[in-house]
Formats: sequence, structure tokens, C-alpha cells
Amino acid sequence: MDIQLGRSRTVRRAYGIDEIALVPGGRTVDPAVTDSSWSLGGITREIPIIASAMDGVVDVGMCVELTKQGALGVLNLEGVQCRYDDPNPALDRIAAVDRDSFVPLMQELYSQPVREDLIRQRIAEIKAQGGIAAVSATPVAALKFGKAIAEAGADLFFVQATVVSTEHIGPEGQESLDLEALCRDFGVPVVIGNCVTYDVALKLMRAGAAGVMVGIGPGAACTSRGVLGIGIPQATSVADCAAARADYFAESGRYVPIVADGGIVTGGDICKCLACGADAVMIGSPIARAAEAPGRGFHWGMATPSPVLPRGTRIKVGTTGSLEKILRGPASLDDGTQNLLGCIRTSMGTLGARTIREMQQVEVVVAPSLLTEGKVYQKAQQLGMGK
Amino acid sequence: MDIQLGRSRTVRRAYGIDEIALVPGGRTVDPAVTDSSWSLGGITREIPIIASAMDGVVDVGMCVELTKQGALGVLNLEGVQCRYDDPNPALDRIAAVDRDSFVPLMQELYSQPVREDLIRQRIAEIKAQGGIAAVSATPVAALKFGKAIAEAGADLFFVQATVVSTEHIGPEGQESLDLEALCRDFGVPVVIGNCVTYDVALKLMRAGAAGVMVGIGPGAACTSRGVLGIGIPQATSVADCAAARADYFAESGRYVPIVADGGIVTGGDICKCLACGADAVMIGSPIARAAEAPGRGFHWGMATPSPVLPRGTRIKVGTTGSLEKILRGPASLDDGTQNLLGCIRTSMGTLGARTIREMQQVEVVVAPSLLTEGKVYQKAQQLGMGK
Amino acid sequence: MDIQLGRSRTVRRAYGIDEIALVPGGRTVDPAVTDSSWSLGGITREIPIIASAMDGVVDVGMCVELTKQGALGVLNLEGVQCRYDDPNPALDRIAAVDRDSFVPLMQELYSQPVREDLIRQRIAEIKAQGGIAAVSATPVAALKFGKAIAEAGADLFFVQATVVSTEHIGPEGQESLDLEALCRDFGVPVVIGNCVTYDVALKLMRAGAAGVMVGIGPGAACTSRGVLGIGIPQATSVADCAAARADYFAESGRYVPIVADGGIVTGGDICKCLACGADAVMIGSPIARAAEAPGRGFHWGMATPSPVLPRGTRIKVGTTGSLEKILRGPASLDDGTQNLLGCIRTSMGTLGARTIREMQQVEVVVAPSLLTEGKVYQKAQQLGMGK
Amino acid sequence: MDIQLGRSRTVRRAYGIDEIALVPGGRTVDPAVTDSSWSLGGITREIPIIASAMDGVVDVGMCVELTKQGALGVLNLEGVQCRYDDPNPALDRIAAVDRDSFVPLMQELYSQPVREDLIRQRIAEIKAQGGIAAVSATPVAALKFGKAIAEAGADLFFVQATVVSTEHIGPEGQESLDLEALCRDFGVPVVIGNCVTYDVALKLMRAGAAGVMVGIGPGAACTSRGVLGIGIPQATSVADCAAARADYFAESGRYVPIVADGGIVTGGDICKCLACGADAVMIGSPIARAAEAPGRGFHWGMATPSPVLPRGTRIKVGTTGSLEKILRGPASLDDGTQNLLGCIRTSMGTLGARTIREMQQVEVVVAPSLLTEGKVYQKAQQLGMGK
Repeated sequence: MDIQLGRSRTVRRAYGIDEIALVPGGRTVDPAVTDSSWSLGGITREIPIIASAMDGVVDVGMCVELTKQGALGVLNLEGVQCRYDDPNPALDRIAAVDRDSFVPLMQELYSQPVREDLIRQRIAEIKAQGGIAAVSATPVAALKFGKAIAEAGADLFFVQATVVSTEHIGPEGQESLDLEALCRDFGVPVVIGNCVTYDVALKLMRAGAAGVMVGIGPGAACTSRGVLGIGIPQATSVADCAAARADYFAESGRYVPIVADGGIVTGGDICKCLACGADAVMIGSPIARAAEAPGRGFHWGMATPSPVLPRGTRIKVGTTGSLEKILRGPASLDDGTQNLLGCIRTSMGTLGARTIREMQQVEVVVAPSLLTEGKVYQKAQQLGMGK
Repeated sequence: MDIQLGRSRTVRRAYGIDEIALVPGGRTVDPAVTDSSWSLGGITREIPIIASAMDGVVDVGMCVELTKQGALGVLNLEGVQCRYDDPNPALDRIAAVDRDSFVPLMQELYSQPVREDLIRQRIAEIKAQGGIAAVSATPVAALKFGKAIAEAGADLFFVQATVVSTEHIGPEGQESLDLEALCRDFGVPVVIGNCVTYDVALKLMRAGAAGVMVGIGPGAACTSRGVLGIGIPQATSVADCAAARADYFAESGRYVPIVADGGIVTGGDICKCLACGADAVMIGSPIARAAEAPGRGFHWGMATPSPVLPRGTRIKVGTTGSLEKILRGPASLDDGTQNLLGCIRTSMGTLGARTIREMQQVEVVVAPSLLTEGKVYQKAQQLGMGK
Repeated sequence: MDIQLGRSRTVRRAYGIDEIALVPGGRTVDPAVTDSSWSLGGITREIPIIASAMDGVVDVGMCVELTKQGALGVLNLEGVQCRYDDPNPALDRIAAVDRDSFVPLMQELYSQPVREDLIRQRIAEIKAQGGIAAVSATPVAALKFGKAIAEAGADLFFVQATVVSTEHIGPEGQESLDLEALCRDFGVPVVIGNCVTYDVALKLMRAGAAGVMVGIGPGAACTSRGVLGIGIPQATSVADCAAARADYFAESGRYVPIVADGGIVTGGDICKCLACGADAVMIGSPIARAAEAPGRGFHWGMATPSPVLPRGTRIKVGTTGSLEKILRGPASLDDGTQNLLGCIRTSMGTLGARTIREMQQVEVVVAPSLLTEGKVYQKAQQLGMGK
Repeated sequence: MDIQLGRSRTVRRAYGIDEIALVPGGRTVDPAVTDSSWSLGGITREIPIIASAMDGVVDVGMCVELTKQGALGVLNLEGVQCRYDDPNPALDRIAAVDRDSFVPLMQELYSQPVREDLIRQRIAEIKAQGGIAAVSATPVAALKFGKAIAEAGADLFFVQATVVSTEHIGPEGQESLDLEALCRDFGVPVVIGNCVTYDVALKLMRAGAAGVMVGIGPGAACTSRGVLGIGIPQATSVADCAAARADYFAESGRYVPIVADGGIVTGGDICKCLACGADAVMIGSPIARAAEAPGRGFHWGMATPSPVLPRGTRIKVGTTGSLEKILRGPASLDDGTQNLLGCIRTSMGTLGARTIREMQQVEVVVAPSLLTEGKVYQKAQQLGMGK
């Protein structure tokens, strides 16, 4: 199935989740009988959804509330929460700024240094309220703050960058993060990402990752494809990394969950990622719509903006209801952005899948891309043309 | 022709009706000589069109009028007609509600219970006026009201759900509908759906279905693809199920008609479904435009809204003429939404097909998707951008 | 290269002109050295363009002016010109009517009978002013008025219907046009169409056609694909029929030109049709923009509207300059809709083709469809959204 | 992988840069360690970007400033700079004219003859300020002004036309440019283009070209595809010509850089061209946005408008910052149109490429075309719908 891009240059076709659809088979299951639970680093959750480590999506309160709802939220340790004692004024300014001033404001706000004491404090706050303390940092920050993070009692540690690799060439004399040593010595399960290929996923699993994040470029608030030309269609990425998981399981007996991250907007998107082989998804914009979200109806990326080459943009997502309504319903919107657990279980039932593992095996077809209403609205909003 | 979605994951490409076109061959037939008639459960109709069992499309009066025009209409026994003595106030409220309040209103209106006495009464009303009493219910309601439906004298019974299967796993202790027993014992021809695959279509025929409904997800007022990730392109679904019909005919000598259901807007869409192998189509929005339709210029789905995960939306379709104008013309619009019988017979003549069976054999090509005017309008209306 | 549409249903992929592009090779030719001339029925023309037999495009004066400019225009003998002594009031009404009243007005205007005396008169008027009298009629009208057309001194006779075939099944007792006899006995070269396949093109050539029209469904003012599901992408149709021309030439020694008809808007479209194998193109909307065109800035189709199933729509094309500017330039627009001869000769030169026969051999690639500005404007205008 | 366009007509599929994406592999490199430098005709530059020889993009001052920034700018010797002592009034009029009067104004302004004295003067002005004097002319102008250009001390000479070929058939008696002789005798490195195929690229290299320009038709201000039907998707063109470079290097030991030209809007586009095999890119509209650009926020093409068949249009690009901000950042926009060097080096690092040669080897996938925000804005602006 190779494609001739040009003379002596052969490439693959990769598929996005907008290009696929799921096919019901000969069996149906009552949604009440389905089981959507999954485990990451020894922690079992009912809802296979992780809220993104982004400043408009997760703060301490959201971590706690997501835990209570049966899902998971990851706190970005390099965001405003660990740069400011009180991050609210910064969040207010982000929500209020006009479009043209957004990038300079972000560059200003994030020039404030990350403070180790605030890292410890935020983790302690989550734990004190009964939340699962899942936190994230880039490889550079993991080197610098790793000890504090482990000591503060984090439950799960996400080492996340646009792209991670087990081999990194830095300037001479600059220390580089040893992922294998980190996983072995950290004392807390380490989830690593993002990657998009079979080879890298396999290397990360062999390095000891408790989970692997999959997805580069497709996110709503991410402009990597325009800025860097990088951005791999999610369906193929997930299927490739799921193949690595299967092969790694065969060689090691250890099952490493795959988390699809980026470009996931609706319940249907989530279901399609699971059907391609994901165990769970990480989502940003759908959670940023919760009344409890710190973004005040806005969502922006990336986790940490570059002072010289920003690749995240801000989009207005609005506030459509409580986190409970978004995760567990009942939905009052008909576009698949509320009652996400209901979407997952109804889809599983319709497709005859009793568990996530069975859901990973349902039939997928490549289908003509159908712009859903939600995506058209979202694109229009990005362009400032929305209502 | 398999596609590599990812490592060790091979999928099919499925085609939608927007992606195909019909090819005239070496013979033409005068439309006056064509015969578009077909039969379902022993009832022969001149027009291969069934109006959808949706509350904005079919009520008692529409059933009667559709019968007179040579077509068929199916009354949804779980809609407002069998929940209210006088459904008009409910229909008025649906037509008047603003977009944001639509879902809650639907959830309120459909929380009123379905009444067995009204089921009997509606069927009697249709029969009294000379209409064919084709009625529909979900599998759960078929279990509950089946006896009343048969006793009331229904002519055709449609058991319709988003997806039906011959194997259903419910919660322990919950009774499940035995489709084979239903077909054998009901005493009225039973049409079953919806399905999209060869295997399920064959199983439904072997279970005794008088007809099989084909199509999941492509409907105008249906948001299943966004909510559940499920939605199979119609051209491939119909062709696959038509292959099951041929194989079942070879093994049993019984010809089971296939009815394409969902996403069909124009005469051209109908013709393409027939050419893919359908015997007839079920359509909602084109009939909702009739002056006689109960929807007052609106169309909404699904048949019965979920209280926790609604998947139907309301679209404004407008009222463009009488049912007779829409089915038999003369058309005063040039976009293929009026004189649907004329569309079918003119297309048959142009393609050299004298009968529906010959129409099922005409040449199809995969062609670049061309947005028809009607579809662009429809999409714009869905997005609230219409005129 | 067959595609599996469904089980036991294999179809072809057909390509449209928006999906292809032309590739310059190792040689260039100065446009001044290129020769774009071609011949049809013994008549040689410098410009390989025929103006469509549509009422908004060609009247007596246009036939004469097109002849003078080196092109050809075909008068529709079943249009307003041969139904009214003075067609101007009818044309004024068509230009002035609002969108919703267009179809009924057309049905009213074309209910007036075609008059044999006016057929004779219009042909005589063209001849008197030195024009080439190319005229068209449907097969039915060819039966009725053929004798008058030949006697009046027509130079070329186009027998055109949406689809022609050599085998037609009519109601019992109804006479059917014998194309072979017509070509043999008519005394004037007969051009026949439209067709889209190798087999039909070959049959028409064997029946004696002086030229074959190729194209069903892609026209700007034609809604056949929406109404009937019929509409074959033009690049594949032309390439298939050109293959028939080559095979017929091999068997007979007679070269029958292929004329691509439908969906051609710009100079680039014309060049692509030639490169697929056409000898010339028939165009409507680009010529309707001429100040001399009878359409008053509007264009509508089909040639003759059906009283019960109209398939033509009216589009506002505007008036952008004289016929000479459109055909021979100089262009004051940069979108390829003026100086069409310049477009053809510049493209030929850039591609290294000295003659139309060489142009039919240039390299074609399938390329991602690029909506040209002209097509987007046109689509917007069709939808009433234009400026 | 050949495609059946029609009977006996087999064609290739060509891919555009919007259809591909780049895939990170197992290694990452710190951007600080990457080296983006390249050489053309013995001149080494840090930034693999050439500003297009278009009147809205490059004048004497821009040549100098681009040199200082580490890039390159090419002065069009047939534009307003060499037709007017003071080109500013002409540039002011182009920026002020309304859309409908643009083409006639261009035809008027460019009817003024190109002056040899101004060619010498502009080259001298660039040299006097320390700029690299890269200049361009069409083949016809190269014949006429070649001696003056060489004598004036040009550093690089670009012979550019829509399409160049080594074999040109002109009218009898008209002299044709001998590219081989030019390269051999000119005394200044000669860059030739544009071409799109392996064969022509190989011929140009064998003729002695110091560099080969690749790309026909995809430019933002170029309407060749609509006017002539010509326009080759860039990814395939670049990959094909890069294969010619490799084969020519194997036969000659001389490495001839490939410059992708046309349709490149963002940093991501640049990176994709490099990954397909380009050594550098030529860009117009992104540079026309610089405060220093002569276009006053507008960009138009082609280099020299035809008096009878214009193929360039004018687009409003706006002014978004200094040339330094656009080339070297820091960016205050997040869409990949500022800090282009940062885009290149960050993409290289993310993809694990230390040099341009390594960047030419990174993995490419064919991915569903994703309209980037920048492209949607650009298209909207072309259509006059922009903000």
C-alpha cells in the first residue's frame, strides 16, 4: 500500500479520526452491561478520559473533581499554577485579552519562573482534598524538579513534550533526561509522550513507561502542523502504537496503556480512538467547557509557550455545563460533547463491546470525511467567525 | 483493496452516495415505459419510497395520503401520536422552541408514557380512512405492545432501532426480543433494521424479516457519527446487504427487499441507492417539507429521544408544496426535491432500466464528491446560517 | 484499478477536470507558432470552442459573430428563438424574474409551440449574415422538423439530448429516431450527443456521426446529478470517448472529433479537456458573459425545460466584456475567463504542443482538487450568496 | 501505482504540500545544535529562504536587508525598479487601485520599457550597501540585457520563466536563449527555472545550472492553473527533481541545489519542502508582509504581466512586522508566518535532523489535507471576504 510521492521516494498514507467510522456487527450489548474502566500505573478509573495538562483545563480543584467523577486530570507544573501564588489574575487577563495581544501576553505571563515551593504546594493541595495527584512536566523540568515532585507525593508523573525520544542530541555539556533511569528510580509511575510511531512507542515501553501518550499535531489549540509541518493523523498513530503495545506485551507480559492525545472533540472521536487501539484519551477543549474549568470559557495551548516561536493559540470554547454534565450527563446538547461516558458506553453497546479491550477490536472502515457540526463551529471560532 | 490503517490493522474503504454517480449505457427507455413498482410483505406499491417513522414526518393523515399517492408511510408508535390524545400542542411547541431549548423540550415531551389505547386508536384511524397501517416500534416496545399492534390490525410492522442484532446481551433477568419468534408468530409481516453489513442482513433474512432496513448514521437529523463514532457510508452498506439478499434468495427462494434509510435528500440520492441494490428508500426530511406533514416545516430525529444522551437534532426544512407535488410533481423546484417519482422514472429511462431490478444493475462509478445545492443549503441550515 | 463498492459489486473510479493538471515537458513552443485549428463536418475553425445551444448563449446574431471570431455557435431550434416571432420579451422576463418564480415562468414560456416557419427563418437569417448555420434539436424534434432544417440550408445539425443511445425503447407505436438513417440521409453533417462511454461513442461513430458530444451532468446550469443521480466526471468521459475515436479511426480511416460539453468554465478547463483527448469544447456560461449574448447576464439550462421535472437552473453570470474580448482578448480579468484563445495557445506553447493533436498527448497528472476563484464565485452565485 | 484516467490513458497521482506531514522518529536534536545553512553558486547562507523576484517583495533595500539577515533576495530586472527612476509612484498606485482596475493598471505600468541603465544602477546600489546582488530576468530579457547584468557585477543570475526548457521552438528567425552557452559563458552562477519534472531538472543541471527552481502553478498570486490548466503539486515536483539532483551528482560529482518555489506560506510549508528534497525555498507572500517590503501590504504576480493574458492577481497580505521578526523572530503570531528560521530549526530538531541534508531524509506521510488557519485567511482574502 505504499505511495509514490516522487521518483525514488515512497511514503505511507496515514489516516485521521475524521476519516474513519465504526461498524456495528452481529451482536449488541445493553449499555448498562458495558464496562469502560481502565488502569494506568496501578490506578483504575471508570472513565477512560484524562483532562489535558493545560492551564485552561486543569487546576487543583479540577484534579479533585475529575477524580471524584471517575476520570483523571493532569496538572501542568510549568503553567501559571506553579508560577504564581494566586494564578487568578493571570487567568483573568488571558480570558480578557484581545486576539492580537494574546501571544505577547502569554510570553509575558510565562516569563515568571516556575517555583519548586508551588509545585510541592499544589500537589499537597490535591492530595489533601482526596484527588489523584497526576502532574506533568517537560523533560527539562523533570530533570530540575523531579525530586520535589516525587517527595511531594505525586501519584502519576507525566513527562510530556511535543515529541519525546529515547535519544536526544543536546548542546555539548547539557544534561539530557535518561528516561530509563527516570522510570526505574522515580518511585512513581511515569507516563511518557508524545510519540506517533511503532518504534518509539516500543522504546518507551522498554524504557519502563507506565503509559504512552500518542499524538503529535492534531490538537485544537495546537498549530504544529502549520508552524513545523509536523502533525500525524491520529487513527494511524494510535493503531501503530497499539501494535507496539501488543508486541511489547508478548515479549514482557506487561500491558502498557496507550493514551490518544490531540484533536479529540466529541464522544464519537473518543470512541474511534478506542477502536483504533487506545485505552483512554486525553482531551482539552471538551473539558475546558466545564463551568469548573480555570479557563473561563477559553482554551489555549501548548502547555508552555515558547518565547520565540509560540505554537499554541487561544480558542473560545464557551461554558456549556458542569463537569459532571460533560462527563456523565444527562446531556442537553445533541452534538456529542456532553455525557461523554454515556457516549462511550452507548457506542460500546451498539458495537457489541463489553470492555475496552473488546472495543479495541471492533470493525473500523475508512469513510469519506464528514465535518461534524461541532468541528465546523470550532474551526469557525478559531477563525473568529463564530457566533 | 484492503487499507493499512496501521501496523497489523487492515480496514476497508466504504463509499457514500455523495461519492458515486450513475452511468448511462447503450440503451435508453422512454420514462413512460418504466415500471418503478415494488413489494413489501405482499403489499405492492408504485413508488419505492417510505416516509420515515418520525414525528415531524408521519401522522395518521400522512399515512393515508401516502397510501393514496402510491407510496407508504410508517407511524412511529413511540412518538407524540401515541403519548398524547391531541399531539398538536406538543408539535406546536417543537416548531416554536428556540435552538438552545430544543433538547430539554424534547426530553420533557417524550417523558409522557406511550399509551396502548392510543396505539390501537391510531391504527384504527388509519385503517378507517383506507390507509395502509405500517407502524414502527423499538425492540423494547415491540415486546410490550406487540400483541396490541397485531390485534389492532396493523398491515406492516417495522421493528427499528439504531442498530438491531440477532444476539443481544442485556442485564441479567431482562427479557430480550427474539426476532425469529416475532417474525414467525406475529401474524403481520415484520420489517427489521437498521443494519449495515452482509452478515447481519443475512441473519435478519434468515430470521424471517419481510424486509431489511439498511443505514446507520447518515441521516440529516441524526448525529450518531459525532456522538458515537458510528455511521457507515450508505452506498457500501446497501451494496453489501444487497449481496446478502442475493445469497439468501439463492438458498431460500424468498426475495427480501432492502430499504435504504438515512441521508437521502434528493431524487438523485434515491436513484443512487436503487442502483446500489436497494428496492426502495425510507426518507424523512424530503417528506417533512410537505404541507400535510405534521412537522410544520421542521424535521427532527431520532424516533425517540434519549433522556440522557440525545442524538437527534432539529432542522428547519421549510414547506415547499403538497405531498403530491413532492412525490408526483409537477416540480416547481429544479433541485431534485420535488416529483421524486419523476426523478426515479426519468433516471431509469436515461439509464435504460425498465424495472427496479434492472435499475439495481446499472453502472456505478466512484466520482469526486460534488456538493449539490440541496446539501449545501441543508448543511447551512443545520448550522443556523440558512436564509 | 477496480474498486470494491460492496460485496460482489466492483466499480471504476472516474476523474473530473478539477482533479487533474497538465505537466510541462522538455520542450516549449512560442504561442505564436501554435495552431489551434480543428475541423467538424468539413468546416475548419481556428478556435476549438462551440457556444452551447442554450437560449441565454446563442441567438442569430451570436451565431454570426461567433463565426466571424473563428469559433462556432449552435442555435437551439426548440428554444425561444423558434417559439416567438420576437423572443425579446421572453428573454427580458427570464432576466427579470425572481428566483422562486423562475421554474414556473420557464414552464409557461416554453409551453408555446415550436414553429417550423421560425426554424426556417432563423437559419435563413444566419446564412444571410454570413454565419455558419449550426443548429440543434432533440431526437423527437429531429423526427418532426428534420426535413425543414435540411431544406433551410443548415450547415451542421446537432442532435442533442441529455443522453443519446442507438437503442431506444419507447411506448408502443411511437416512432423512434434512427440515428444511422439520419446520418446517411440528412445531407448535412450530423453531430450527436451526449454520451460518456467508449461503447456508446463507438456506436455513434459507426452510425455515421460527424462529431460526438461528450459530457453528462457536469454543467454549471445543469442539475442532473442532484435530480437523477447521473453525472459523469468529464476527464474520464473524454479520455474514454477519445479511445473510441482512435479505435474507430483504426477500423474506418475516418477521424471523428470529440467535443467536451459541460462544466467548463475557464481557459484552464478547456486546456485540460483537450489534453484528455477532446478536439474542441462546447461552453455555455463563459459565452453568456458576452455583451452580445441574449441572456442579459444570465445563463440557464437545459436546452428545453421539462414541464414536470425541470433540471436546469438559472445562474447570474454577469456581463464582463465583448465576445471578442472573451474569445481573443486582451483580457482585463486574470482568472482565465477572457482571451480563451490566448489561454489555449499559451498553454499549448508552455506544454510544447504545436497542434491540437499534440495537445491531446501532453502529460496529465491527477492532482488534489484546487477550487479556483472562478468556481468558488460561481458556486456562491448559484447559492445566491454572491456579491 | 498508475491510475487509469480512461481507456488507454494512464496517469500519475501527484501530491501537494498540503497533503503531506512530517513524522518524528527515534531521535531528537536540540534546535541549538541544528545547522540550516546551504550554498548556491558558491555563496553560503544561514537561512534556506530566497525572497521572490516580485515587485511587491524585493527592491534594492530588501536585497540588502535580506543579505544581512542571512537569507537572499532576488531583484526582478523586468519590474518597476528597472522601468522607473523612482518606482514609488507606481507602487503607490498598485496599492491604492480597486480590484476591478488592477489588471488594466498593471498593463499600463508595465508598458513602460525596461532600461539598461536602471539595471546597472540597481545592481550597483545593492553592491554599494553590501548586499548580495541576486537578480532575475526572463530568457528573452537575458538575451537582451545579459551583458549589462554581468558587467554590473551581479553575484547570482536567475533565469526564470513560468516554464523553462532546453528545447524551445520559436517563430522563424527569432533567436532563442542557449541555456548551456549562458551557464558556460556568463561568468556569474546561473540559476534556472521553473521546472517540475525529473527529465527537465536533469537537463538543466547538465546544461550547467548552479541551481534549479522547482514549481509551476502553486503560488498564491499565480492563476496559471485556472488560466492554462497547468499547475503541478509541489511535493511530487520537488521529490522528482531531487531524484534528478541525486542522479546528476552520481554522474558528475557536482551537487546542484533545488529551490522549491510557489505556494509556500508558513514555516510548516518550508519544512515540508525541505523534507521532500529541497535545499531552500523561494517565497513571496510571507516576505511581502514585512514592514520593509515595497508592496505596502500587497503582493502580486507574476513577475511581468502579459498585456493580453494576465495570470497574476493581487492579494492583500497586510504588514505583520519587521523582516527580522518574520525571518528570525521572536514571533508574536502563532500561525507559523513569523520566525521562519525558528520554525525550520525547531522542526529539524523535533525530527532529529542536524543538517538540511538530514532534513531531506526525514519520514513523510500522506495525510488528509488540513486547511491551516493561514491558508483559510489567505483564500478568504483572495475572495475579498477577509477582515
